[in-house]
Amino acid sequence: MTARDLGDRAASLNPRKPTMADVARHAGVSLKTVSRVVNQEPHVRASLQERVQAAISALGYRRNEAAARLARGATMLTLGLVMENISNEFYARLAAAVEAAAAGHEALVVFGSYEESPDKERMLIESMYARGVDCLIVVPSAADHAWLAEHPGLTTVFVDRVPPGLAAADVVLLDDVWGGRAATEHLLARGHRRIALISDDDGLSSVHDRASGYRRALREAGVAADDSLVVRGMFDPWRVSHEVTALLDLPDPPTAFFATNNRAAIGILHALRERPERPAYVGFDDFALADVFNPGVTVVRYDVARLARTAVDLLLHPSPTPRRVEVPVELVARGSGELPPP
Amino acid sequence: MTARDLGDRAASLNPRKPTMADVARHAGVSLKTVSRVVNQEPHVRASLQERVQAAISALGYRRNEAAARLARGATMLTLGLVMENISNEFYARLAAAVEAAAAGHEALVVFGSYEESPDKERMLIESMYARGVDCLIVVPSAADHAWLAEHPGLTTVFVDRVPPGLAAADVVLLDDVWGGRAATEHLLARGHRRIALISDDDGLSSVHDRASGYRRALREAGVAADDSLVVRGMFDPWRVSHEVTALLDLPDPPTAFFATNNRAAIGILHALRERPERPAYVGFDDFALADVFNPGVTVVRYDVARLARTAVDLLLHPSPTPRRVEVPVELVARGSGELPPP
Repeated sequence: MTARDLGDRAASLNPRKPTMADVARHAGVSLKTVSRVVNQEPHVRASLQERVQAAISALGYRRNEAAARLARGATMLTLGLVMENISNEFYARLAAAVEAAAAGHEALVVFGSYEESPDKERMLIESMYARGVDCLIVVPSAADHAWLAEHPGLTTVFVDRVPPGLAAADVVLLDDVWGGRAATEHLLARGHRRIALISDDDGLSSVHDRASGYRRALREAGVAADDSLVVRGMFDPWRVSHEVTALLDLPDPPTAFFATNNRAAIGILHALRERPERPAYVGFDDFALADVFNPGVTVVRYDVARLARTAVDLLLHPSPTPRRVEVPVELVARGSGELPPP
Repeated sequence: MTARDLGDRAASLNPRKPTMADVARHAGVSLKTVSRVVNQEPHVRASLQERVQAAISALGYRRNEAAARLARGATMLTLGLVMENISNEFYARLAAAVEAAAAGHEALVVFGSYEESPDKERMLIESMYARGVDCLIVVPSAADHAWLAEHPGLTTVFVDRVPPGLAAADVVLLDDVWGGRAATEHLLARGHRRIALISDDDGLSSVHDRASGYRRALREAGVAADDSLVVRGMFDPWRVSHEVTALLDLPDPPTAFFATNNRAAIGILHALRERPERPAYVGFDDFALADVFNPGVTVVRYDVARLARTAVDLLLHPSPTPRRVEVPVELVARGSGELPPP
């Protein structure tokens, strides 16, 4: 199915039935409040109840059949989570954290992985929309997301990356520039001057910002950036491993590496298994076994649960003006980033 | 919420509206066929169409609102996946594989993690049921599942473990006895006689069967089982690490380990990081970095995608008689399982 087919299908779906999110927007209250009123939960302020009821009448909202089945008043939010690949550790942790945050609001989570296909990303979002998912958390691809503006009824928060082509979006990001800079400064402080950058798709804002932090740290230290030490577009640990080996075979090889995500760090581990050199390296993203290697893997890490909680919080409290929240990151020294130059 | 509350709530839900699964059972056809008829897809045999329409009339089935929204005839299955914890690599891989298998039938996946709480497992299943999930894949806890028999409308397939208390269930298992036996025989063949077993909750059929394979291999080799070398109930790599250290400190320590799951294998890796000994070990479950350690980690592995495809296939083709399918496993030698005794 092409993006055009999806667009046609989306157009055919309008006019659509109003959702809880529409009612929340119309009444100027949170989704949670609408859900509580619809499900006749106790302890909702009378003034809020009236606003919600007025919005329900104005829009002609009717709660859906699944909700009606649970006649006892449980809230019935369903949250969609769209990401690259749930089998990658970052996404698995994010999914677990979103689930935990959603469970606090009795919401269930539908997930979908789009691999590296923006068409599949769009198809997943359209499909969730068509099935009455109330709100969405999306880790967006590098493709243009302007088409999403045609779905004002779908409350969406973007996580980890800014969606290209969608100016008015709520986003929860990591402090990627700071992280890239801290990782590089950490290596510079140990005396490294030839520091390679192992990076992913530059079209992803997270990758772009981590690389910016790297270049900024080099510039501030008076170290000239060397493009021959920069590898981009690395999705796959095996390809990373190959590139790291090639870099180590250079006449003037790097003595240190900064890996902009967990796949890149794992690729470095693969390559070093077969090599006599002991270059220093720092990865962005923690992973479960990072402290079992010897030396342990020094990483830039962050609280995935906080990322998820922040996103769920923005979803449940929609705002007419777009919001951008940054979650802090920190450097954890475990050994690999503290190795000196040879 | 207690199990009793959940039971009360479940009772209050009956009589409930008939689901696609009810129609499929009544008509004696697959869910997929019902979905295709309901959504007016082409190429459905007339005789099947008639049977499905007759069942729809008899039961008074009406497709739900979300389905009705997508007026173009896409199938609208939603599949629930209930497991211990999606952030564990085994479950993350399973979720990715279930998603891929479900996508082949245009089904979306709702997931839920119950951690170590049977009450939460039940709550998740009830909640998915209440929200109109069409069918379920469950990796069951060790608790009694007899209560699920009260939900005949919910087509469920169990994966990885047999659900206690539910005789007539479809299950897709690994060949756990064979795997436990093969791992142990592999270590015996290298001359090991003191082989420790690092195991999880024995109430889980998978864990029980892997341990049975271990004992059987020892018995067949004429090696007396030594209970002081058996550690049970290990959920957490850190506790495993502690127990492995204690075993290595014994006057007559084990020279090899069989770990019945990935957490146990990772616990062994943790412990060995701090030790001079180089015992052999074999793990059950592959993991992403198993071949990056030096030596690589020898494991019993299996095709997670096949596990998932088989489960989805059983779901979409319900049968009045319970089925039990075993997926084969294989031993992959990477170094850690081939180390000789000291």
